[in-house]
Amino acid sequence: MNLKEKYGEWGIIIGATEGVGKAMAQKIAKGKMNPVLVGRRGEKLEALKKEIETDYGVKAKVLVCDLSEVDAANRIIKDTTDLDIGMISYVACLHKFGKLQDTSLEDHKKMLQVNVITFLELFHHYMGIFAKKKKGLVVNFSSLTGITSSPYNAQYGAGKSYIKKLTEAVAYEARNDGIDVCVATLGSTKTPSFLSNLPGGEEGQAATDRAMDTDDVIDEIFENIGKVRSLVVGETNRETVKHWYEDMSADEQAEYMGKFYER
Amino acid sequence: MNLKEKYGEWGIIIGATEGVGKAMAQKIAKGKMNPVLVGRRGEKLEALKKEIETDYGVKAKVLVCDLSEVDAANRIIKDTTDLDIGMISYVACLHKFGKLQDTSLEDHKKMLQVNVITFLELFHHYMGIFAKKKKGLVVNFSSLTGITSSPYNAQYGAGKSYIKKLTEAVAYEARNDGIDVCVATLGSTKTPSFLSNLPGGEEGQAATDRAMDTDDVIDEIFENIGKVRSLVVGETNRETVKHWYEDMSADEQAEYMGKFYER
Repeated sequence: MNLKEKYGEWGIIIGATEGVGKAMAQKIAKGKMNPVLVGRRGEKLEALKKEIETDYGVKAKVLVCDLSEVDAANRIIKDTTDLDIGMISYVACLHKFGKLQDTSLEDHKKMLQVNVITFLELFHHYMGIFAKKKKGLVVNFSSLTGITSSPYNAQYGAGKSYIKKLTEAVAYEARNDGIDVCVATLGSTKTPSFLSNLPGGEEGQAATDRAMDTDDVIDEIFENIGKVRSLVVGETNRETVKHWYEDMSADEQAEYMGKFYER
Repeated sequence: MNLKEKYGEWGIIIGATEGVGKAMAQKIAKGKMNPVLVGRRGEKLEALKKEIETDYGVKAKVLVCDLSEVDAANRIIKDTTDLDIGMISYVACLHKFGKLQDTSLEDHKKMLQVNVITFLELFHHYMGIFAKKKKGLVVNFSSLTGITSSPYNAQYGAGKSYIKKLTEAVAYEARNDGIDVCVATLGSTKTPSFLSNLPGGEEGQAATDRAMDTDDVIDEIFENIGKVRSLVVGETNRETVKHWYEDMSADEQAEYMGKFYER
């Protein structure tokens, strides 16, 4: 699919350094779009830029930015003003384990900035641009923890739920405006972050066995653009969610996820 | 039930002026707790203070505060420092109809401040206090729009989902700490705000017919404290949610709620 023709020249991947964001950047480059690679680690992003430019014959741009800073969205908007932006994908997220009150308010606000505020500011800004041009693509990322709620990781789960519900609503609002808006809810995915945060024991092993490859995740999302606005990615994850919704109360879902993190 | 003995002398009702918040303030006063009445409209709150003090023989305190201001939580915390706080209930919320990009970022940030940030700051602070005392009660409020997502009212629905998922997770974390934490998900409730925001047509009429009285909502919540951490209030609402979860995709749920607001 020629994404450049359909949506525009450049796509901004917020949280592009590795894992799902990196796979997303490669996917749109394959579709002839130039990715703007946003993340904290300049060196890794520069390496990815070179790799993508070589592999796909597109241009790429690195934008080093800490998304937990209050002016992060403004910086991204300012540094891409001259580009024909046709796509954004918000992949970034921040979490810290522990009971709510055992994490400092300062750390909660950093998480909120990354998971909710910077996300909102960028989503709002580029929806305005896409609405004027009557074209554009938005792919946001949520998580199964946003469905069950996420004890000991409560801020993260709540933020992922916010992203899911905001995007689902906007996707419906935009359905006749030429803009494809979707939110992908991921379960375990083989990213560096996932692999370094695994709990031990059988649950951890089972999670690894269930985990999807990032390329498969991204391919499934693109197969569903224009068809499904809110997509739980992966057949196993869809079965899991169906089971939660049909057989378990919200309290039982929280307990299930809480026990997972207690190990 | 003597709430004062169980939880402490004072309970803070954030958004106490009318509707659900007012009914909550009356309920805890009936349980011998002194309510701190937080809201914007000083005159109405002063009248409620007098009414409650007369009807229930407790003390009440008015705290006039605009929850959309960034220092709102700090002010509430500061002005109640000397009180034995045993309970908080976050009822306040702010919404504005329209497509995401048609509402200014400034207005979105006001909604986010009321629906998410001030909520988080207060929840975090008082959970710290309750954890130290090993007692306390938290009753937060979500909405069916936080389940379906809420097209043309996206910020509100996403905020309500954030409240629901954060509270569900923390309720599980706190289950053995002597703290009762719960989140009540409300459908249509006969509040002044609901009645002034009703859409027209059959859907509006049906919503009115389904709407619960605020006192019934509050009674049902208190019957379930210690039993259900995440409660959808009202049998009809529980049946509706069951139907959504079992028979409708997330896209169909968004469409259902979107069509409701389109009228």
